[in-house]
Amino acid sequence: MKMEAYFSKYIKNALQKNPPGEWMFDLPDECIRLNSGFPAPDLIPADGLKNAVDRLLEEEQDLPLHYVGSPRFDRLKEYIQQRLQEREMKDGEVLVTAGACQGIDLLARIFIDDQTLVAVESPTYMEALEVFQNYTDHFMSIPVDEYGLQTDQLEEVLAERQRNGQRLPKLLYTIPTFQNPTGTTMTTERRKHVLELADKFDFLIIEDDAYGELFFRDQAVLLKAMDRHDRVLHVGSLSKIVAPGMRIGWVNAAPEVITALAWFKKDLDHPFVQATMAAFLENNDMAERLNLLRETYREKRDVMISALKNYMPSSASWYISEGGYFVWVKLSGIDTSTLLPRALDEGVAFVPGQYFFLNEADGKEFLRLSFSYASRDDIADGVQKLANAIEKK
Amino acid sequence: MKMEAYFSKYIKNALQKNPPGEWMFDLPDECIRLNSGFPAPDLIPADGLKNAVDRLLEEEQDLPLHYVGSPRFDRLKEYIQQRLQEREMKDGEVLVTAGACQGIDLLARIFIDDQTLVAVESPTYMEALEVFQNYTDHFMSIPVDEYGLQTDQLEEVLAERQRNGQRLPKLLYTIPTFQNPTGTTMTTERRKHVLELADKFDFLIIEDDAYGELFFRDQAVLLKAMDRHDRVLHVGSLSKIVAPGMRIGWVNAAPEVITALAWFKKDLDHPFVQATMAAFLENNDMAERLNLLRETYREKRDVMISALKNYMPSSASWYISEGGYFVWVKLSGIDTSTLLPRALDEGVAFVPGQYFFLNEADGKEFLRLSFSYASRDDIADGVQKLANAIEKK
Repeated sequence: MKMEAYFSKYIKNALQKNPPGEWMFDLPDECIRLNSGFPAPDLIPADGLKNAVDRLLEEEQDLPLHYVGSPRFDRLKEYIQQRLQEREMKDGEVLVTAGACQGIDLLARIFIDDQTLVAVESPTYMEALEVFQNYTDHFMSIPVDEYGLQTDQLEEVLAERQRNGQRLPKLLYTIPTFQNPTGTTMTTERRKHVLELADKFDFLIIEDDAYGELFFRDQAVLLKAMDRHDRVLHVGSLSKIVAPGMRIGWVNAAPEVITALAWFKKDLDHPFVQATMAAFLENNDMAERLNLLRETYREKRDVMISALKNYMPSSASWYISEGGYFVWVKLSGIDTSTLLPRALDEGVAFVPGQYFFLNEADGKEFLRLSFSYASRDDIADGVQKLANAIEKK
Repeated sequence: MKMEAYFSKYIKNALQKNPPGEWMFDLPDECIRLNSGFPAPDLIPADGLKNAVDRLLEEEQDLPLHYVGSPRFDRLKEYIQQRLQEREMKDGEVLVTAGACQGIDLLARIFIDDQTLVAVESPTYMEALEVFQNYTDHFMSIPVDEYGLQTDQLEEVLAERQRNGQRLPKLLYTIPTFQNPTGTTMTTERRKHVLELADKFDFLIIEDDAYGELFFRDQAVLLKAMDRHDRVLHVGSLSKIVAPGMRIGWVNAAPEVITALAWFKKDLDHPFVQATMAAFLENNDMAERLNLLRETYREKRDVMISALKNYMPSSASWYISEGGYFVWVKLSGIDTSTLLPRALDEGVAFVPGQYFFLNEADGKEFLRLSFSYASRDDIADGVQKLANAIEKK
């Protein structure tokens, strides 16, 4: 029997998309993973989480193992709210989600239908793009430079669409701080500008703040903290600062949005990990932890930038990330997807730029390096191996 | 700003539905919870799970705390596959989900659009119904009796719709074994019949087997094990036999269905709890555990049935469940939703029948009692309190 014949009309397009790069999770052990958006293994608090589970189950027994019932569910939400308040966020309610990705999926579920135009950054986070592509085929992309989203270009495009009577976007998806993949941050001026544009052209903004806490110098003001008209749907996560496998994220938005998201979330909850995370946060000083992360990742970023300077050909250029996990490299005249197999032969992996663009060809000369997962020695070695692969072309 | 104005056209109907009965989770401590579909607190293996986490994190350190990487993810899937094979299921692939509920939601996501007619049992599991209502407004319901879904009536209705040129259902949702809420089980003859009807009228069947392992006498053959033409989409869960808060469920279906479900599942995964469950299953004898659960719940069922016989008025009747968690009671001439506040005053909670019907009025004289959560003493007391509330009407 052909099961495809029974599929919903909504999903047929989505399934024709390219599957994500499974190769990334199937690399030989000795390969240096400059592709990996994982946190550093030694910064994952395995012991702290083990202690948290021990204490949780000794104190609460079966409570966190039912559908609802642990007092720590509320405490986790309170922690997240308090942390957001410290970051100048005054309004909005919090819904805890299974990672930022569930937050993005639920937002797509309630705001996007097959007629919705979604504006995205170019390049952007591929998994968010894939989620949106499950709901609509209508996208427009606006380039990012070293100061983040180019809001002047956004304004131009929107004004032109308006003049021509074309449909306007209902949603803009942005990672304003330490963007994935470019590592760049939207300036305060551009943040103000994009909020003005949201009012003027009547769209909502999904602010994906997965990396915002990992600044090496200055903390950026959250878009949501500058939002005066409930335009911003803020998505955050503990994946990059505690552990992705716990799948703890959140959405902060206007109460009626949270009510709608909660309706569609239903039982797709995860009481045990929520209670465990609350127990972990009780006994671990997050400020101290964040300082350690910032320092460690800053050092790793420095190692990567030095290695790039030392080993890369003069045709290569990159942004110097001031936070987050990534460095975005341009290799003029080189197709990075054909470079990848040669790099893997040398023993280093990266993510070719094509994965981050709606129009894959736009990513041809780019690649994303991550300094989060590999050790400092491996970062330096890995960049050298990458340079070798480029030379052998 | 009115956020509702931005919501997708798909969700506007869904949000007008009644929210689920939040009162159920906000009862005074002393209230006897014959409403609760939770497992018995003393049967939740809190210690076993604590030990599993300890061992997991000692052996694997950060591995189960990343997005992917723990060898135990595959082992959990293998355990589930093996268990299904022991239950005579030969075909199909497994996708691990965040509880049965995510499985049902993902199936709805790939099969249901706004034109899809879904057939459901009457009464049925309210949360599944709510999930389907997020995708379509077209339902038909077929009554359940003590032998499960009335397949003769299903055939009649389908034949009549076909004669009249009306749309036929694409999906039937059934809980064939120890149904929620009736506790009844579809006979083997009816199982064969419903599979024949699926072929004849060309529909798929979601088999929700949340309670199938909890038999007190005989094990029913899975619909999926009898399925010869990939008609059955089997959904299972460890929620009722290990712990709901771990959120481990699965879908077993044809490979192309699993591929599509996995696409929409994406990062809505939960590596840490999957690896923890695999570690738990390594060190705990599930056959032994299941025997303990069957014996304990059978005794509790007996206590409830005795108490019903002792205390209920002669106008009351019920099915004797041969497994699962629930007893379905009919109180002729009594509106169970107006009975509820009086029962709460007496100190006992139940779920009024209206929650389980598409047409709420059909549930007026029914209520669902659960013998899973309360202790044996409380079950007997609770039924007596319920009888008191009925007398005071």
